Amino acid sequence: MRFARFSKNGQTTFGVVEGDAVKALRSGLFETPEYTGEEYALADVQLLAPVQPGKLVCVGLNYRLHAEESGVPVPAEPMLFMCSPEAIIANGDTIVLDSDKDRVDFEAEIAIVVGSRCKNVSQDQAKDHIFGYTCANDVSNRDLQRKDGQFTRAKSFDTYKPLGPWIETELDPDNVAIQLWQNGELRQSSNTNDMIFPIKRIFEFVSSIMTLNPGDVIITGTPSGVGPMKRGDTIDIEIEGIGRLSNTVK
Amino acid sequence: MRFARFSKNGQTTFGVVEGDAVKALRSGLFETPEYTGEEYALADVQLLAPVQPGKLVCVGLNYRLHAEESGVPVPAEPMLFMCSPEAIIANGDTIVLDSDKDRVDFEAEIAIVVGSRCKNVSQDQAKDHIFGYTCANDVSNRDLQRKDGQFTRAKSFDTYKPLGPWIETELDPDNVAIQLWQNGELRQSSNTNDMIFPIKRIFEFVSSIMTLNPGDVIITGTPSGVGPMKRGDTIDIEIEGIGRLSNTVK
Repeated sequence: MRFARFSKNGQTTFGVVEGDAVKALRSGLFETPEYTGEEYALADVQLLAPVQPGKLVCVGLNYRLHAEESGVPVPAEPMLFMCSPEAIIANGDTIVLDSDKDRVDFEAEIAIVVGSRCKNVSQDQAKDHIFGYTCANDVSNRDLQRKDGQFTRAKSFDTYKPLGPWIETELDPDNVAIQLWQNGELRQSSNTNDMIFPIKRIFEFVSSIMTLNPGDVIITGTPSGVGPMKRGDTIDIEIEGIGRLSNTVK
Repeated sequence: MRFARFSKNGQTTFGVVEGDAVKALRSGLFETPEYTGEEYALADVQLLAPVQPGKLVCVGLNYRLHAEESGVPVPAEPMLFMCSPEAIIANGDTIVLDSDKDRVDFEAEIAIVVGSRCKNVSQDQAKDHIFGYTCANDVSNRDLQRKDGQFTRAKSFDTYKPLGPWIETELDPDNVAIQLWQNGELRQSSNTNDMIFPIKRIFEFVSSIMTLNPGDVIITGTPSGVGPMKRGDTIDIEIEGIGRLSNTVK
């Protein structure tokens, strides 16, 4: 199922997306769906970021080709950092560059939405604790990333984490195409099967460190082809089986 | 005032600490205090971490002497990273080492508790958005910190962020003693006047990047004298004008 969060007539509601329509829910995201009976065309509602996580955990360098283009060796373990959940914006929202001079890159990523409170989850059990998947843009100020060493500032500016358009709960995440277009030109085109650490290994690793809660989000690294954005750009990210996340830049 | 969160008779309550007693509140942390009329001896309640932050933002290297002992130049800007808020434990709780072999250090720090939702706060306005201050231990696995480059894993294991014992709202944070004892032996002894970036500058810097919310916590770096802990240790951190945070290690 596809769970969206949306605003309609000044009210914020979860809903289930079917084709070009969304059926409103009175239930929350992690409950058995209870429908209100109201249904809207997707074009007539404002999509919001599908989840407001407590924790936004990020994985660096997780695609083989991106490791090669970055000129760094393939890591032996996932490399983690965290970003401000306040950086999250929805499909259709605007990425506001923090600098006129610095290089600020797009990074298409598949995001895991945690479904239940858990710790020390094995790879085999990971899918029992994952609610679903969505698209993310891990917008990164490369100059600050290099200067700081730590990635948090470079990637935590408000608006730097577009997330959406909705959460797909029925996806096999290990073999789906992931693509990014800048103003309609294809810039990133890969498949999650190029991941160094697959989704279940990332989940095992993160949950071996920190207790995870429903709604926490883990973004899982970007494939090759990253590049700088400029004001006026439109960035579209599509993950096979999920959908398309589209944002403009100013 | 000193605001604590505590458990008594299976109920979790905020309270105002006066001397050795705590007066229970029916109000929340950021509201005008409304007293229930109940009062307990501090010894008869279980203190909890005084706040459960959405974001736990950390500043690296912020005392001149600690920069010297670490052999790194004094930074030109605060260096930020983020840790899992699930790592937070209360006064009296136990730090559980993640490894038998790695070096895991204590780090005494003064913590800022954010009081209101804010962005782009100037140094002059910072105090209007700060609710108060408490003590923190920024427990750090040095081997993982070195190995990962990013600090999040090394400092985010559950139990690695003791916080408390309570929040002091009436403190001038720029000239208070900060001390740490390991099994009664003084290991860190400094003053916040040795900070490279004072509290108000840190607040300005963090809020220039990310929107802050009430209850968010910023820990502000540790002075010189850090060192490794072992199982069975007791670590006491005292900040002048706040109080003492005491935890054991296993």
